[in-house]
Amino acid sequence: MSDANQPPYWIGFDLGGTKMLAKVYDASFRELGQERKRTKEHGGTEAGQERIVKTIRKAVENAGIDRKQLGGIGVGFPGPVDMESGKLLEAVNLGWEDMPLRETLEKEFGCPAFIANDVDVGVYGEYRFGAAKSARCAVGVFPGTGIGGGCVYKGKILRGKYCSVMEIGHIQVNSHGKLCGCGRYGCLETEASRLAIAAEVAKAAYRGEAPHVRQAIGSDLNEIRSAVLAQAIKQGDTVVEQIIRRAAEKIGMAVGNLVTIMCPDIIVLGGGLVEALPELFLEPVTTVARNTCMPPLANMFKVVVAKLGDDASVMGAAAWAEDRLKKRKTERQEANSST
Amino acid sequence: MSDANQPPYWIGFDLGGTKMLAKVYDASFRELGQERKRTKEHGGTEAGQERIVKTIRKAVENAGIDRKQLGGIGVGFPGPVDMESGKLLEAVNLGWEDMPLRETLEKEFGCPAFIANDVDVGVYGEYRFGAAKSARCAVGVFPGTGIGGGCVYKGKILRGKYCSVMEIGHIQVNSHGKLCGCGRYGCLETEASRLAIAAEVAKAAYRGEAPHVRQAIGSDLNEIRSAVLAQAIKQGDTVVEQIIRRAAEKIGMAVGNLVTIMCPDIIVLGGGLVEALPELFLEPVTTVARNTCMPPLANMFKVVVAKLGDDASVMGAAAWAEDRLKKRKTERQEANSST
Repeated sequence: MSDANQPPYWIGFDLGGTKMLAKVYDASFRELGQERKRTKEHGGTEAGQERIVKTIRKAVENAGIDRKQLGGIGVGFPGPVDMESGKLLEAVNLGWEDMPLRETLEKEFGCPAFIANDVDVGVYGEYRFGAAKSARCAVGVFPGTGIGGGCVYKGKILRGKYCSVMEIGHIQVNSHGKLCGCGRYGCLETEASRLAIAAEVAKAAYRGEAPHVRQAIGSDLNEIRSAVLAQAIKQGDTVVEQIIRRAAEKIGMAVGNLVTIMCPDIIVLGGGLVEALPELFLEPVTTVARNTCMPPLANMFKVVVAKLGDDASVMGAAAWAEDRLKKRKTERQEANSST
Repeated sequence: MSDANQPPYWIGFDLGGTKMLAKVYDASFRELGQERKRTKEHGGTEAGQERIVKTIRKAVENAGIDRKQLGGIGVGFPGPVDMESGKLLEAVNLGWEDMPLRETLEKEFGCPAFIANDVDVGVYGEYRFGAAKSARCAVGVFPGTGIGGGCVYKGKILRGKYCSVMEIGHIQVNSHGKLCGCGRYGCLETEASRLAIAAEVAKAAYRGEAPHVRQAIGSDLNEIRSAVLAQAIKQGDTVVEQIIRRAAEKIGMAVGNLVTIMCPDIIVLGGGLVEALPELFLEPVTTVARNTCMPPLANMFKVVVAKLGDDASVMGAAAWAEDRLKKRKTERQEANSST
């Protein structure tokens, strides 16, 4: 398809619970253009897919590049993914099922597409360009609408035989806990996602304990975004700080157990909420994780905040598409040279 | 050292909380000789190391081979290991610290030695010769004096930058739980190891609810071994069955969370207790794991019982030594051909 003499462009796409973001990169991963839309999660699978295609189309237009020069598209998806088939297994917080996204994108844009879990590519982005460079084993925990997790091991996204890994949000931390979007009870994300935090804050606002939140947006979960929380803390709603700190401690416990299981050298905290309030997460997650993991492992890891911020997943997805195509090329050359 | 024309012999060594086992294998991993000793955990680090050397020496003698034909020694150790340096980080249930075992063995036997976690090599043994053949990601859970864990990913032992992984016994499952040998509270092994089970059974025997146990061995934890438990169940001590089933359910919860994190395709249950009572573990672990993991992953894994039984770790350790030496050789050849 593409002119072999010109280095290809890469598209990264990040599908979040509340917004979707497409970016176009040149071969050195400099950004050329982007497009952002609300996810509008209640439109069903088909409408969702159409919206994704439109967003990418617009990003390509904004970048002013020729579609024929696209090298590949990488997509970060918020849920478990069958990475071989590109099938999305479940988007707990979107209600989408069995979306044939890879086929659709390859047909529309005439280049290979790769679907991966959003935090997997987010950690990959941090591994390539950000806070997890040279990690042997980097694990990501990104609290958002849910809590995503991802892992890059020896430079590659760790994955199971049938599925991506690190569904950290669905670790059961409390068997008597609240109902989760996945259908189980007491998953980590029922206690520590931005949505769980927003629900606690909304209750506090309703009870009059978070006056600045109440004044700014009332008690509607849909309005309680990261920026609102950060602003309310600045204005003196200490209960909001308490709620977030408690959630961060829960994440710290899960991270401590992850250290006991995986011995990662770097744990990356990311996503909009962490970006808005990095200190509120970094200290409690680190402290509780060190106190939870097996003692001899307590000083073998570092907890860091994602350097690429909101770009981690979208940039990582694009870079991962590049990596996959490089791998395909190497395999093809090896196959040719052995015949 | 060795005669290049004759295929080398391999030694596998497995250090357990109660016994140590050395076996000598030929190049096709047929057993040529063995030696078994009680671990005697209260003798300190130096005495422990001396005992290990003696046990291996005796196994070599029993196999009737020439020491000069040894290719390598693989050691499975019950605790986290720095696999680069061969340093044993901690043996929670033995009280040993900073044992320079690799150096000692290499000096004594004149061949390379490799130290790894016991369940890591156990899973590797099952991957090479047993129940986990062709797994992409195999995770092992071996309840013994503690509860060991291990992982083979894409044919290699998964490991962190500084340490072996999968210290499953030290996942915190109950923050209000009992004191663990590691110094924390509420680790999985305080609720579901053979030692934890033995303590529950001893209490039941003391209360008169496990009359066959009481009659056979009284209420001394040191006497409550796997065979005693199996025998008591056969004779009608139903409380023993209940206690073990409850422990298996706790393991099932941890396995369910492990599936959510790692998406292994095969989970191997092993160790003496599982070998003595496989059905009492297999069904509850499988059922509870499927009900605990994230729903779309519930049918993506199989729980199996180790096929090699007690030999998993010792055979796996020997095979792993072979694998490491093969890797060293390849690296050396590549280095030579590139100069």
